[in-house]
Amino acid sequence: MNKQTEEALKIVKETLALEDKYGHALNVLNYDMETICPEKGMEAQGEIISFLGNEAFKLRKDDKFIEAAEVLYANKDELDALDKVLADQLHRAYLQDKNITPEKQLEYSRIFNKAFVDWSAARKEGKFELFADSLAAVDKAGKEMIALREKTAEEENYSVYDMMLNDYERGMTTKELDETFNRCKEVLVPLLEKIKASNKKIRRDFLSIEVTDEQQKQMADYLLSVMKFDTTRGAYTTSEHPFTSGLAKDDIRLTTHYYPDQFISSMYSIIHEGGHALFEQLQPAEDFDHYINGFKTLGMHESVSRFYENRIGRSKAFVHLIYPKVCEIFPQVMKGVTEEELYYALNIVEPSLIRTEADEFTYTLHIIIRYEIEKEIVSGKLDTKDVGARWKEKYKEYLGIEPSTDREGVLQDVHWTSGFGYFPTYAIGNMYNSMYIKAMEKEFDIEAAVAAGDFDKINGWMKEHVFAKANRLAPAEWIKDITGRDFTPEDFLTYITEKFSKIYEL
Amino acid sequence: MNKQTEEALKIVKETLALEDKYGHALNVLNYDMETICPEKGMEAQGEIISFLGNEAFKLRKDDKFIEAAEVLYANKDELDALDKVLADQLHRAYLQDKNITPEKQLEYSRIFNKAFVDWSAARKEGKFELFADSLAAVDKAGKEMIALREKTAEEENYSVYDMMLNDYERGMTTKELDETFNRCKEVLVPLLEKIKASNKKIRRDFLSIEVTDEQQKQMADYLLSVMKFDTTRGAYTTSEHPFTSGLAKDDIRLTTHYYPDQFISSMYSIIHEGGHALFEQLQPAEDFDHYINGFKTLGMHESVSRFYENRIGRSKAFVHLIYPKVCEIFPQVMKGVTEEELYYALNIVEPSLIRTEADEFTYTLHIIIRYEIEKEIVSGKLDTKDVGARWKEKYKEYLGIEPSTDREGVLQDVHWTSGFGYFPTYAIGNMYNSMYIKAMEKEFDIEAAVAAGDFDKINGWMKEHVFAKANRLAPAEWIKDITGRDFTPEDFLTYITEKFSKIYEL
Repeated sequence: MNKQTEEALKIVKETLALEDKYGHALNVLNYDMETICPEKGMEAQGEIISFLGNEAFKLRKDDKFIEAAEVLYANKDELDALDKVLADQLHRAYLQDKNITPEKQLEYSRIFNKAFVDWSAARKEGKFELFADSLAAVDKAGKEMIALREKTAEEENYSVYDMMLNDYERGMTTKELDETFNRCKEVLVPLLEKIKASNKKIRRDFLSIEVTDEQQKQMADYLLSVMKFDTTRGAYTTSEHPFTSGLAKDDIRLTTHYYPDQFISSMYSIIHEGGHALFEQLQPAEDFDHYINGFKTLGMHESVSRFYENRIGRSKAFVHLIYPKVCEIFPQVMKGVTEEELYYALNIVEPSLIRTEADEFTYTLHIIIRYEIEKEIVSGKLDTKDVGARWKEKYKEYLGIEPSTDREGVLQDVHWTSGFGYFPTYAIGNMYNSMYIKAMEKEFDIEAAVAAGDFDKINGWMKEHVFAKANRLAPAEWIKDITGRDFTPEDFLTYITEKFSKIYEL
Repeated sequence: MNKQTEEALKIVKETLALEDKYGHALNVLNYDMETICPEKGMEAQGEIISFLGNEAFKLRKDDKFIEAAEVLYANKDELDALDKVLADQLHRAYLQDKNITPEKQLEYSRIFNKAFVDWSAARKEGKFELFADSLAAVDKAGKEMIALREKTAEEENYSVYDMMLNDYERGMTTKELDETFNRCKEVLVPLLEKIKASNKKIRRDFLSIEVTDEQQKQMADYLLSVMKFDTTRGAYTTSEHPFTSGLAKDDIRLTTHYYPDQFISSMYSIIHEGGHALFEQLQPAEDFDHYINGFKTLGMHESVSRFYENRIGRSKAFVHLIYPKVCEIFPQVMKGVTEEELYYALNIVEPSLIRTEADEFTYTLHIIIRYEIEKEIVSGKLDTKDVGARWKEKYKEYLGIEPSTDREGVLQDVHWTSGFGYFPTYAIGNMYNSMYIKAMEKEFDIEAAVAAGDFDKINGWMKEHVFAKANRLAPAEWIKDITGRDFTPEDFLTYITEKFSKIYEL
């Protein structure tokens, strides 16, 4: 390594070490804000978060740092593999931000903040028209930010919407998603019709029997221990919306939410967030030393959380494993409920209006609707004031139901207050995991391992194949590295068709 | 105000505003550390706390700030009343630190850290001799720090131990404490003998019946609402040792601890910490704007927490108020237990070894033992290696019992790992509140207010008389301002004699 590169590496690492300290503090402050901070304490705590965030931001805007990062990129062939990943990402971030002045940055953040405020008000009132102008402003700001950006080589032929997708799932394009989602609709929409027409009766009377928070907490503890979540390196509590945060290398936090009349809800939110948390706990320790631990994409993350939630958690083998404990912890619910009845209840297919409560089968259709609508907005085909109406049409078309209020419709998700391109990652995750499960199956009997509670085997395979290179490779390379194949939705569609045809006796 | 003073005030306020931001972040990080941070995440979080603490520390060590603070002190007659309080305190802090170099500071903090580590190990092994050398080092470092200090005018004739006391309770001297505690022993030791000889039978069979965490949480919610703790400006959770932290002006946090077989324990720890929390919530808002909100002393704080815990919480009127709810929340415990039986059980007097579990009557004796021993250490009369033996002698003499292990004896409290002078504040608190209750009684019928649950009246009086000037006056001035009288233990001794003579039918 030449002297200049060496010096540049030193500057970059020192700056990132300092940034990490602020990041750790900010992670704790944000976790606190979402979980326990009282209502009237939030504003002041928000200011502290802005203050420390700004201190951290200044570090990256320092000329010496920028220059050093560019030296690294220019000389990346001299770097070891992990530092090379870092150099690429710093360069990417640099191109993204270089033409965005602090004034512009402030202007955009005001637009997004206003959008959030308008969305909250619109949601409260149940009136989409109160949000429509802000949605247009978000669209405009997003396009402007992309116009200001210098493209990387791989982004050269990207459309504006491709660029937006790329911010959440590197390398994912409109073309690929169109093909993927059209194929999904081809399979899922007619299959849903058959399911709806099926005579299969699934027992659901026990699903809304009241349970206590303490029972749900006992169940959460049990599920995390089954999954082998390491509680010496992590913790959980409750929050309005469940989430996971990698606070620090040895401190991974998740949250759940207890509803007294929906015992299933917190169980599967714990398994879902527990999946995210395992990904954070079992990634390579050296990724932290190279400051690349945050590079895994949202699609990768969702693939893992949904692997644990759906592929493991809603399987017959898993229900067999946990059934005795479910009966023990929730006796008032489970009295007279068989293992099979529990399995079927966990896999009820029912078109519904709210994405976050959707079943495994219909979930993808919720995502496709959002994808198609945001693409229409960005391309200019759809005026933001007509989005509410378009939403209803699409729900009718794909799911056969229609929201009677905007609150249950277009206003249900917060995501559009900060731009477009996020939603597809949720669906992509299921397709990734369906692909890598095929690779896993070749090495051992997954069902047998789950039924035996052998999560060391499952987590071990995930660690070696799925987690090991997630920070280091772009999604397309990563899935090819794991499976030897290019991205495809077919494994997912095969799985979902087989599983639900069997359950609904089609 | 002359220009120079104005400029100095501006510099001081800007610096303290910035220090406050770090302080707020640190408060959140510390609260998180004590409540939810997982075991293996603590070391890294500790480093973040040191890092931000150091950033804050640097602000005060800045020459421009020190100079400005000294200008304020020199011209304090030009300042408004609250800024004058600030100027005095900054000057005091300046004299305290001016001769302590960063190297010395580091040296002392290492000694205290080592003392903590040794104490933990000694406690684990139950062997005081493992801690004796560190205790000697703490004594030596404490004395050195005081020798390096420049005294204020009021401290001129203070002994070394007076200076130590002064750090926790400004103006409190050995002479005054000797008189106070000797008087207490004169009254309490023979009275305890009579209590022990009493034939009064108090029912206690229900005190160790098992309850769930959820029941205890319900009770905690109820008690905080009875006390009118504002949950929009505060929150609570659990921690190993209950404590209260004023995170920010509108964010006061407390903690409790649930023991399944001691339902009383968490109830009274909630009331105690709730008292601290009310003090923080109901102090004057403008004290925050002048950065003097942290000036109230430990003795003042304990006076308030023990006012709510003992004077209110263990009174007949309070038991009358909460009895129906206690029966409702803990039916398995309270079946067949009368209101009177609950009152008596809350006031059992029983010499015991552990200070934090002591009853209202014997508590003061636990403090006196610590006071007398630490005074002997500081004066050089007692070698630290003999402290364990001395501890046993004193417990035998005042309480008539003797610890069989050091863990239940001299090693029970963490306080001596960071110096001497803290303990007396715990006992002083009871004497303050006994004085101000006499003033309160003249204005309204306290028992009637408590029985009616009229905490607006009680908290209102506390706010106006006790909380209003706590940050602004030294303890001696403060208690005189509230009561018109000088500090005395007599009100406390009269109260305790009357209450327990009645309960034990002496």
